[in-house]
Amino acid sequence: MGGNKVVLLGAGNVATHLGRALKENGYQVVQVYSRTEAAASVLAKSLSAAYTTSLDDLYEDAHWYIIALKDSVIQQLIPSVVKGKGEALFVHTAGSISMDVWKGYAKNYGVLYPMQTFSKYRKVDFMQVPFFIEANHKEGMTCLNTLAHKLSPKVYEASSEQRKYLHLAAVFACNFTNHMYALCDRLLGEQGLPFEVMLPLIDETARKVHELRPKDAQTGPAVRYDQNVIKHHLGMLAGEPDMQEIYEKISENIHRYDKL
Amino acid sequence: MGGNKVVLLGAGNVATHLGRALKENGYQVVQVYSRTEAAASVLAKSLSAAYTTSLDDLYEDAHWYIIALKDSVIQQLIPSVVKGKGEALFVHTAGSISMDVWKGYAKNYGVLYPMQTFSKYRKVDFMQVPFFIEANHKEGMTCLNTLAHKLSPKVYEASSEQRKYLHLAAVFACNFTNHMYALCDRLLGEQGLPFEVMLPLIDETARKVHELRPKDAQTGPAVRYDQNVIKHHLGMLAGEPDMQEIYEKISENIHRYDKL
Repeated sequence: MGGNKVVLLGAGNVATHLGRALKENGYQVVQVYSRTEAAASVLAKSLSAAYTTSLDDLYEDAHWYIIALKDSVIQQLIPSVVKGKGEALFVHTAGSISMDVWKGYAKNYGVLYPMQTFSKYRKVDFMQVPFFIEANHKEGMTCLNTLAHKLSPKVYEASSEQRKYLHLAAVFACNFTNHMYALCDRLLGEQGLPFEVMLPLIDETARKVHELRPKDAQTGPAVRYDQNVIKHHLGMLAGEPDMQEIYEKISENIHRYDKL
Repeated sequence: MGGNKVVLLGAGNVATHLGRALKENGYQVVQVYSRTEAAASVLAKSLSAAYTTSLDDLYEDAHWYIIALKDSVIQQLIPSVVKGKGEALFVHTAGSISMDVWKGYAKNYGVLYPMQTFSKYRKVDFMQVPFFIEANHKEGMTCLNTLAHKLSPKVYEASSEQRKYLHLAAVFACNFTNHMYALCDRLLGEQGLPFEVMLPLIDETARKVHELRPKDAQTGPAVRYDQNVIKHHLGMLAGEPDMQEIYEKISENIHRYDKL
């Protein structure tokens, strides 16, 4: 346990960025698994690794088996991944999946959750990525800690329960935030205005919460409860009932939340 | 028209930051008006200006009358503000209010809309603030352009119609985004986790849309349509029906939007 040979399961955004970072930091990705041959071969090539589309063909002598796949498929793969590879360390990278999915299958196991948003065509600076780790025993935790620290200085231990909430909170802070940007982009596009004009505001909104608590940083018509503006905006969104509903719900919630 | 003496109406966040920036850039704020004496006197003192709480006592010889007040009160103040100050340039700073509110009252008028989020205890770098300007005649536009350029390099002409949409789009990109941060903070707080762990993710989410269109930058369970995770998250939010509803609406919308 704790060597540098890694079998990486997955070829999506997380697997791709993690694979590259492992390779750049002294780990050897020996094999990539993906159900999709094209995806497996492209990532394997960039990591100078072998690839397979069959779980029966996984190498058995790696030190690490890292599953970086869609949450919904992890559980069903585990028996085949673990089979015949007794002493290795098995980890998954999913925020919302308990460490216990490995229980009863693997001897040494844990979780390596990089809390970041990974997109295919954008390089990720892992030094800025917080890793949340968990292992089923002390020795495993030491190995995971060593690996995570090679990728980032921001390594925290977190229980499965804590990680579940971190992931949920991240959905609000990242995925839902990005959707707000997308709705903004759509509105501007409809008026022939470029999205770039919004970037200084987006940046300042993010910077502010480095100093102020988000609740104290809140501005705009909803927190002022400026009903004229809110009513006017809802009218402007009449042709976009989904956006109108989101505007209404969030505005109500901002107003209510301000009173707490 | 176009001199450097300014009467500033308002003593809130926008008025405060704008007043300071004007003072630092060669304009002289001669008088501050606010309904609230305490607010008026504090801001006036910091700008070495006089103050008043009565519209009847506004100086009549300033070159600029800048209304930086809550949108809902602007219209009703206009007749009193304009009265007896014929040649001055009258502007308001509201994103959602048409330039035409001045029509029939003032001779020279316009709009100076700084599209940024202003909080009391945070210094704003005006060099990063885009200003959208509009005036009822060419000479006024020249004066406004000169003033805005002293505050920021990012000055754009925008019609009242465009500005209305800019403001609405800004509500999504800034106010609603900040509320997502606030909900994230609340979730983390309930689990005893510090909000700081989320800052790298928040920063990267903002940085990404400098390079990718928001739609292409979307990640997370909703865009993957990972129903297990979504269901699980909704269950975790059972004690917070408002947050649950927001989670559900935005997730549905992300999924639907991804198909467009």
